[in-house]
Amino acid sequence: MLIALFPGDGIGPEIVAQAKRVLDALAIPGITYEEGLVGGAAYKAVGHPLPPETLELAKRADAILFGAVGDPDCDSLERHLRPEQAILGLRKELGLFSNLRPAKVFPELADASALKQEVASAIDLLIVRETNGDVYFGEKGMRKTPEGLREGYDIMSYNEEQVRKIAHQGFLAARARRGKLCSVDKANVLETSQLWRDVVIEVSADYPDVALSHMYVDNAAMQLVRNPGQFDVIVTGNMFGDILSDQASMCVGSIGMLASATLNDSNQGLYEPIHGSAPDIAGQGKANPLATVLSAGMMLRYSLNRPEQADRIEAAVAKALANGARSFDLGGTMSTVEMGDAVLAAL
Amino acid sequence: MLIALFPGDGIGPEIVAQAKRVLDALAIPGITYEEGLVGGAAYKAVGHPLPPETLELAKRADAILFGAVGDPDCDSLERHLRPEQAILGLRKELGLFSNLRPAKVFPELADASALKQEVASAIDLLIVRETNGDVYFGEKGMRKTPEGLREGYDIMSYNEEQVRKIAHQGFLAARARRGKLCSVDKANVLETSQLWRDVVIEVSADYPDVALSHMYVDNAAMQLVRNPGQFDVIVTGNMFGDILSDQASMCVGSIGMLASATLNDSNQGLYEPIHGSAPDIAGQGKANPLATVLSAGMMLRYSLNRPEQADRIEAAVAKALANGARSFDLGGTMSTVEMGDAVLAAL
Ligand SMILES: CC(C)[C@H](C(=O)O)[C@@H](O)C(=O)O
Ligand SMILES: CC(C)[C@H](C(=O)O)[C@@H](O)C(=O)O
Repeated sequence: MLIALFPGDGIGPEIVAQAKRVLDALAIPGITYEEGLVGGAAYKAVGHPLPPETLELAKRADAILFGAVGDPDCDSLERHLRPEQAILGLRKELGLFSNLRPAKVFPELADASALKQEVASAIDLLIVRETNGDVYFGEKGMRKTPEGLREGYDIMSYNEEQVRKIAHQGFLAARARRGKLCSVDKANVLETSQLWRDVVIEVSADYPDVALSHMYVDNAAMQLVRNPGQFDVIVTGNMFGDILSDQASMCVGSIGMLASATLNDSNQGLYEPIHGSAPDIAGQGKANPLATVLSAGMMLRYSLNRPEQADRIEAAVAKALANGARSFDLGGTMSTVEMGDAVLAAL
Repeated sequence: MLIALFPGDGIGPEIVAQAKRVLDALAIPGITYEEGLVGGAAYKAVGHPLPPETLELAKRADAILFGAVGDPDCDSLERHLRPEQAILGLRKELGLFSNLRPAKVFPELADASALKQEVASAIDLLIVRETNGDVYFGEKGMRKTPEGLREGYDIMSYNEEQVRKIAHQGFLAARARRGKLCSVDKANVLETSQLWRDVVIEVSADYPDVALSHMYVDNAAMQLVRNPGQFDVIVTGNMFGDILSDQASMCVGSIGMLASATLNDSNQGLYEPIHGSAPDIAGQGKANPLATVLSAGMMLRYSLNRPEQADRIEAAVAKALANGARSFDLGGTMSTVEMGDAVLAAL
C-alpha cells in the first residue's frame, strides 16, 4: 500500500508530520510513503501548484494524506497557477467526487463552540459533498458585454449521472448511520438544483429504509445554527457543500478538529483536515494537528481497509483530549508537537 | 405617497395586517394604500404569481410592503408560475438591486439565540446583498449532454456596472455605521467573484475612510458562527447573500424579528420580513408580526423620508419586548394580533 504525503503550504508540513508520527507508531505492515510537492510550495519550487510528478504519484498511490494549500504570496498569480488549483486538480484528475465531512462534538470540547452547549453537543452529522462538478468546474472566464463592460462568468451545471453517483453515496452513508438523508439545493431558483432534486428523488426508490427530506440552502444555513442536532446526513453540491461544511465545522467548536475524506469510484482517497493553510501561524508550532491525525484515521478506514487501526486513532485522540491536551485554538497552550506527543501517549 | 400592500401567501396576510395597524396608528398624512395579489394567492386567483395589475401597481407605488410568498401547493408548477417568481420578478422589473438586511440582537432576546449569549449579543451587522444579478438571473434551463444525459444549468455572472452599484451601497452603508466593509466572494474558484473583487477594490478608492476587507464565502459562513461581532457591513452577491443573511438572522435568535429593504436607484423600495410564508402555521394566529412591523419602519426611513416615525416604530417594538411581549417563536404564547396590540400600546 502506497500513501502519498502532500504537506503543502503554511501549517501543512507541521500537521502532516504529526499525523505521520501517529501512523508510524501503529507500525502497520506493508505501508510505504512517498512525499510530493503541492500548492504554493510546489509553485515556488518548480513553477506549478500541481506538478506532473505530484499528479503521477497521486494516481499511483492508494491514498493521499494532504496538509493544506494556500499562500498569500500567490494571490496575484493567474488562476491556473494558484495553490488552490492543486486540490481542485487532484479532485478532478483522480475523479475524487465524494467528499465526506463528519461533524461531531467531542464531549470535552462542547464548551469551545460559539453555540450553546446543549445545541452544540447534539451535533452528529455527516456532510456528503459532491466535488467533481457544479460551478467549480464549468466553463468560466472574463468577457465583454455588448455594451463593452467587463463581465465575469461561471457556468453552474450538474448532469443526472453526477447527481446519481453522489446521491447513492448519501443514501449509503445514511443507511450506515441513523437512516436520515437531507438533500440541500436551491430548486426554487436554480435549474441545476431542480435536476439535482429530481434525480435524488429517483435514486431514493432504491433506499426505502432511508428517510429523505429536501431543504433549500438558505434554510439549511439557518437550521445548522438553530438546531444542528436535527441532521444525520446532508448531501449537497460542490458550492453549497463548501459553505455548509465550513459552517458546520465551526458549530462543532474548532475547525482544528475536523477531518475529511474525498473518494473516487475505486475507494482511492484524499484525506485532509478541513481547515486551511493558516499562513498567519505557520512555522510557529501553534497549529492543532488533530484534524490531520483524524484524517489519517479516515484514510485507514476508507482506503486502506484497517478499521481497527482507525478506531485506535480515534480513541487515542479522544483520550488525549480527555487527558487535557489543548492546542491554542482549543484555548490551551500546547504546541503542535506536544499535541502529537499526547496522541502517541494515548495510543 | 402610495404604499402597495402585497400580503401574499401563508402567514403573509396576518403579519401585513398588523404592520398596517401600526402604520394607521401613526396617522401620517398623505399616505394612501392599495392592495395587490402576489405569489401562490395570485396564481390561485388569476393564474399568475405576479399578475400585470400587481406589477403595474408596484411600479406606481412609492413603496411596497410585502408579506411572504411560497405555497407547497405550487411546488410542482412550472418554474415561471411558482410563487417565488413574484419576488424575483418584482426585484428585476423594478430594478430593486440593493437588499439591506440588518441583524442586531434585541437585548431582551439575547438568550433566544442558539449562540452563547456573549457571542449573540455582540451582533450588530448589516448585509448588503445584490438582488438583480448572479446565478439567479442568468440563462438557465435543462439540456442534454452529448451522451444524452439530462443536465441542468444556470449561468452565474456579474458585470462591472452591477458590482460597482452595489459596492457603492456597501461603502455608503459602512460610512454611515462603523466604517468597516467586508466583501464576501469565492475569488479562489469563481471568475464572477474575481471580477467582483477587482471592482470592489476599484470602488474603494472613493472611500478612503472605510476599512475594506475580503473574505471567502466558506470562511464567512464560519466567522458568522465563531465571532459575528467582528462584522459591521457585509457586501456580497445574490446567491451568497441569500445564504449568509438567513444564517445571520438565526444567529440573532428568531428569524421572526428580521426586517429587510430592497431599493432601486430612485429609492423606491420593497419591504419584507426575511422569514418566509411558514405554511405550517398559516391562519393559526401564531406568526410573529414584528419583522413586518420593523420592515414598515424601514419603509418610512428609506422610501417615505419619515425617519422620526421610523424611530417611533423601532422604539415601540423594543418597548413591547421589554414589556414581555413574546410570540411562539420567541418562547411565548402571544398571538399575532396580541403582538400587534403590544406594539400599539407601546407606541
Ligand atoms: C481551497 C478551495 C478551492 C476549497 C474549495 O472551495 O473546495 C476549500 O475551500 C475546500 O473546501 O476544500
Ligand atoms: C424566495 C426566494 C426566491 C428568495 C431568494 O432566494 O432570494 C428568498 O429566499 C429571499 O432570500 O428573499
